[in-house]
Amino acid sequence: MIKLEKIKSTPIPTLKRLTRYLSVIHQLKESKTDYISSTEIANIMGLDPIQVRKDLEFTGISGFPRLGFKIDDLHFAIKEILNWNNTEDAFLVGAGSLGQAILGYDRFKSCGLKIIAGFDINPELIGKKISNIEIYHINKIPNLIKRLNVKIGIICVPASSAQDVVDLMVDNGILALWNFAPIHVNVPSDIIIENAQLSQSLGILTHKLAEKIKAY
Amino acid sequence: MIKLEKIKSTPIPTLKRLTRYLSVIHQLKESKTDYISSTEIANIMGLDPIQVRKDLEFTGISGFPRLGFKIDDLHFAIKEILNWNNTEDAFLVGAGSLGQAILGYDRFKSCGLKIIAGFDINPELIGKKISNIEIYHINKIPNLIKRLNVKIGIICVPASSAQDVVDLMVDNGILALWNFAPIHVNVPSDIIIENAQLSQSLGILTHKLAEKIKAY
Repeated sequence: MIKLEKIKSTPIPTLKRLTRYLSVIHQLKESKTDYISSTEIANIMGLDPIQVRKDLEFTGISGFPRLGFKIDDLHFAIKEILNWNNTEDAFLVGAGSLGQAILGYDRFKSCGLKIIAGFDINPELIGKKISNIEIYHINKIPNLIKRLNVKIGIICVPASSAQDVVDLMVDNGILALWNFAPIHVNVPSDIIIENAQLSQSLGILTHKLAEKIKAY
Repeated sequence: MIKLEKIKSTPIPTLKRLTRYLSVIHQLKESKTDYISSTEIANIMGLDPIQVRKDLEFTGISGFPRLGFKIDDLHFAIKEILNWNNTEDAFLVGAGSLGQAILGYDRFKSCGLKIIAGFDINPELIGKKISNIEIYHINKIPNLIKRLNVKIGIICVPASSAQDVVDLMVDNGILALWNFAPIHVNVPSDIIIENAQLSQSLGILTHKLAEKIKAY
């Protein structure tokens, strides 16, 4: 096991790039590559090598002269920063089409997230298992958050009920929310909220495409 | 119809915030509010009022003294920057659970995106309709991109086939790609690519939660 130095607080843009490096490093690990340099990562991803080197300093591990970083070490260290070597239990609320896709999305397990229960108000869903995860009525949330000490809530309900569901989870002790509802929700300042930002990503794409088409 | 001044090139961070303002403005529009100031938007969203004012300058519209911006104008102008007043046709490749959720996600229609066909290699899906969108075999992509002049491709295939599907679409004239595959894909520099960044968003959440738990 590698030894990690004391890690400085990692800026958000660095965290975002680290998740992207991780996907490249994961591919290299699968293809049995042993070492990679920050310059090689920069070339693969079309980024500035200085930027990549600075970002990788946050992992606290050092490369070997001429070889670069040991892939296994880098993989472990980035996952450590993201807290993906541990797994946190999560509740998902709203088991409609998007919620069901997330329940079935195996990959989150390698990203430190294990969804242990789903919640909905639709009687046709309650009591069923989706991707082997049981769906309960929303009114079970208060009791189960406390009993199972769950810290992460995933919000997949329609915009109109998102704030109510968020309030219910926060009131019962949830610490972090991942919001897929296409709406701004308010939370107390000590609660972590991340918006899944699908529409932000789409907005950048459609804006750039319009610019490109105008330029023709 | 409001008149838009010549719009300056909009930075990416501004575009991201504009999509978030739009969701607040959309809620206000539904609740029949007529005017809003940049300070009020900043308060609702917990942002710096100066930042919000600067961002809204990119819309090219002016507020009224004491009233602020006309909600309808602001709504229209932000959608104009994002190119969400127009609709672009898109193809979706990979009609598994995530692909099916996206096919059924009505909201993208108000974000300038209309998915007109899906593609897969699974014989059980080909010829079926999902959320009223027909699924074709992937080998129809080259012909249909050209015939229907489709510019946007949505990639929902597994990581292992993402690069092949991206290459196929780029070779046949797609201009912009929205990538949901959890992998880095390479595209020529003139092709627009946006990663849906679910794992980036999750990485920030799990990192912050770990820091919070450590601080207890």
